[in-house]
Amino acid sequence: MPITVVGSVAFDTVETPSGRRERCLAGAATYFSLAASFFSPVRVIAVVGQDFTATEEAVFNAHKIDTRGIERAAGKTFFWQGSYLENLNEAKTLQTDLNVFAGFEPKIPAAYADSDFLFLANIDPVLQRRVREATPQAKLVAGDTMNYWIKDHKPALLEVLKGLDILLINDTETRMLAGNDNIVQAARAVMAMGPRMLVVKHGEYGATLFHKATPGAQESHTFKTPAFPLEQVTDPTGAGDSFAGGFFGYLASQPELTPGTFRRAMFYGSVMGSFTVERFGTDRLQSLTREEIDHRFNQFRELTHLD
Amino acid sequence: MPITVVGSVAFDTVETPSGRRERCLAGAATYFSLAASFFSPVRVIAVVGQDFTATEEAVFNAHKIDTRGIERAAGKTFFWQGSYLENLNEAKTLQTDLNVFAGFEPKIPAAYADSDFLFLANIDPVLQRRVREATPQAKLVAGDTMNYWIKDHKPALLEVLKGLDILLINDTETRMLAGNDNIVQAARAVMAMGPRMLVVKHGEYGATLFHKATPGAQESHTFKTPAFPLEQVTDPTGAGDSFAGGFFGYLASQPELTPGTFRRAMFYGSVMGSFTVERFGTDRLQSLTREEIDHRFNQFRELTHLD
Repeated sequence: MPITVVGSVAFDTVETPSGRRERCLAGAATYFSLAASFFSPVRVIAVVGQDFTATEEAVFNAHKIDTRGIERAAGKTFFWQGSYLENLNEAKTLQTDLNVFAGFEPKIPAAYADSDFLFLANIDPVLQRRVREATPQAKLVAGDTMNYWIKDHKPALLEVLKGLDILLINDTETRMLAGNDNIVQAARAVMAMGPRMLVVKHGEYGATLFHKATPGAQESHTFKTPAFPLEQVTDPTGAGDSFAGGFFGYLASQPELTPGTFRRAMFYGSVMGSFTVERFGTDRLQSLTREEIDHRFNQFRELTHLD
Repeated sequence: MPITVVGSVAFDTVETPSGRRERCLAGAATYFSLAASFFSPVRVIAVVGQDFTATEEAVFNAHKIDTRGIERAAGKTFFWQGSYLENLNEAKTLQTDLNVFAGFEPKIPAAYADSDFLFLANIDPVLQRRVREATPQAKLVAGDTMNYWIKDHKPALLEVLKGLDILLINDTETRMLAGNDNIVQAARAVMAMGPRMLVVKHGEYGATLFHKATPGAQESHTFKTPAFPLEQVTDPTGAGDSFAGGFFGYLASQPELTPGTFRRAMFYGSVMGSFTVERFGTDRLQSLTREEIDHRFNQFRELTHLD
């Protein structure tokens, strides 16, 4: 089933202990789309500037990603510069130029109207809500956010949460959003804000899927996936968005959404995140094959299963 | 098979967001022994002072732990005071009184001579080495250490590592010991120092078992267990020692040590750690039943397994 994703397409300049890369194709919607495209058709809503050329367009085309919703605006594409030299687990932002993103008003092509799956990547919650309201047909809606929106735009974010089935955020964001340091209690508080599932991403320690408690539900409604033990993390940028792409892309590819489907989706999320960080930018996702994905999925099983 | 453990028996005063407890029975050898006793017979080597009374002795007796190796010395038992008020994941030490532990010279009762399993809890590596050399019959030897010994007593510690089959330490200690921030590379470096297996404990994120690469070994020789998602962590003290007790106690209970045995041992380690932190000191271990352990083991399976 096709997925519509709204979010940023960007150019990033990053420096990590492995080196430096100038203006590589990046942005949450880019990482999400490439990761999800291995499982399901993907349609993007974003805005880019005149520096987004046929070279970048070709990356999306190579993965059969529908780019009719990528608006071309006068000016430059969103630019971010960050450093992981001090801490490989957390980027230090050196520069953010919103450029054409500053005036972004998401427009949803008519051709996207039959997307049953909608992903609201990390952007202004006002825009997330607008896209959610314009896609009433969506049957499963997931989204991401970040500390900035939690801290300074909470009322708008709370409106978005009401329309989400699944929220994907990290430990710190979960604790901040709930105002509670215990992650189990915090997860419950966040799910009370709307989403019936919460994926808490733990960086190098994997992720946990929480389901909202329902009367008569199974005792255990929590599932954990580790991160893959990698000998080298070249560039952590996009790991979370790639996780979301693998997770949601796999869900959209399945005929029904059983508890087992969500468990496997968590594994595919971790698999896609683990590939992304092996190289700079989207390099690894661009060269990836489905065979490599399935091989690593099996490695995750060996890494976690008793028998 | 019986396990001999050498380490500290202590009184702890702890304060956590859940409250404060004065002088509760504690120490690495105590937590280890109680946790391991659910799986295998345990024999302790330690020293205590005159404040160690029949009340404390009864806790060991209730779990059929052999205390003939606990020496009674003139003076007071080792005392530690710590606070988790600022950070539930890391204790702030407020006071350490070595007391009778300062002159500790481990003596191994003749009755312990047939222990095939030896655990060297976190004490001065000089003492760990002495006990190791005095128990040449031990077929599987595991041990723990801490940042203090890594930083200031590395030569003595390196001698201990040569005699270990399995080392259990946390992420920070692994990185510090190896001088490498990548945990996979650091694990390999630590195993090159002696132990053929390394268990890296990640606190609230579980633990990873690394096996030394051998020619012709399976591709994946790494196994991950999560920590149990708890709604309340009352007192984190002893979680790592309880993990070690569950892990090593289970190993000692098995007729052979297959890769599957080590995987299940990792789960039992996490299970025992998760119980310990539910109450202050050893309260939860004291009230625990084997049925509760097996129930939580099955919850770990549900938490991590696809099917």
